[in-house]
Amino acid sequence: MRRLYHQPLSPFCRKIRLVLAEKKIEVELVEEKPWERRLDFLRLNPSGKVPVLRIDGLVLAESGAIFEYLEEVYQTAQLLPDTPAERAEARRLAAWFDDKFHHEVTVNLLYERVNKRLARSGYPESARIKEGARNIKYHLDYIGWLMEGRRWLAGDQLSIADFAAAAQLSCLDYIGDVDWSRSPALKEWYAKVKSRPAFRSLLADLIPGFTPPQHYADLDF
Amino acid sequence: MRRLYHQPLSPFCRKIRLVLAEKKIEVELVEEKPWERRLDFLRLNPSGKVPVLRIDGLVLAESGAIFEYLEEVYQTAQLLPDTPAERAEARRLAAWFDDKFHHEVTVNLLYERVNKRLARSGYPESARIKEGARNIKYHLDYIGWLMEGRRWLAGDQLSIADFAAAAQLSCLDYIGDVDWSRSPALKEWYAKVKSRPAFRSLLADLIPGFTPPQHYADLDF
Repeated sequence: MRRLYHQPLSPFCRKIRLVLAEKKIEVELVEEKPWERRLDFLRLNPSGKVPVLRIDGLVLAESGAIFEYLEEVYQTAQLLPDTPAERAEARRLAAWFDDKFHHEVTVNLLYERVNKRLARSGYPESARIKEGARNIKYHLDYIGWLMEGRRWLAGDQLSIADFAAAAQLSCLDYIGDVDWSRSPALKEWYAKVKSRPAFRSLLADLIPGFTPPQHYADLDF
Repeated sequence: MRRLYHQPLSPFCRKIRLVLAEKKIEVELVEEKPWERRLDFLRLNPSGKVPVLRIDGLVLAESGAIFEYLEEVYQTAQLLPDTPAERAEARRLAAWFDDKFHHEVTVNLLYERVNKRLARSGYPESARIKEGARNIKYHLDYIGWLMEGRRWLAGDQLSIADFAAAAQLSCLDYIGDVDWSRSPALKEWYAKVKSRPAFRSLLADLIPGFTPPQHYADLDF
């Protein structure tokens, strides 16, 4: 049985769920609370991080490595473009959101507001929340700027870059931290990603104790 | 002209230098100080990070994306194994060092001791240095544990996993922060990576104001 160990508001798990759904690979979702450091889970992935995917008799960890595996083996949908140069651009932008956006924004907003409460590891620090709120602006503007000249984030076709970005943003949107009015190009891009069938299961997640804003699951937000 | 914008003690730049040298791709090295946020450099890479590689008429950024590009286009040496499962393991371990090791160790030790002084952005925080010194132990033990059953970190052949790990460790070794005596398997592995011709240019780097320990450039350390 294919199985994904995940957290509903982990952007890296959401990225892999989008990839799996886009490629029409069915998996059983198993919620894992990484902060509990469950021994059986640490045996699967000594880094202690989600997502972890059981597939084809393997145990895969690290969302970048999981993605590349799925892209190599399951060609039901292609999430990297055809040429090495275009693939480099898609991977550059995926890394931008997985790494830069994540550390400058997601860690400061989502982890302060949500993860700390879930893991009972302290109270949100307002200095961090302010920093995250300041940082997200230029990332949103970067998306808007890219989308003024492109159909999708990395070029002419939907790619892992769109899913990496939308995975981070959908988590922040759940807690109402994304100002979609910053640019029409930004909002159009997100509406386009959000309306894909692959996005549905993400929008249906509900995290006890946290209620998403009205527009969260609305395709015409 | 191929050109790599880099910092001598950036582990991500070192990883790409190892990949380039192993594949026998000659490049001109240009030192970039990312903390100066030079406008012409930000035009090349809006994220402001090194390494950035000019090659084949392209400008490539993000070390993971640069590596995958080089691996696809330059087959003079192969740094990912043959099967998707083995490649997933090599990429998992590369991500372990690029992400987990980097944030738990390198940021706390190297960035506190060296980067803050280079960028004149404050004094080292001893709490962070202590945390880094505590964290590095279990990473070193993980390498030792892996190497008890393997020829190279990700399996039977040298891969990007070895270079990702050695790139981080060589920076920390420059400031004397690696206790190689923790296990014979760890030390043997590093001696094997370090003795590759690709490693030579790294060991020759000297950073003004910081003198590496005696054993740093010694192949029989």
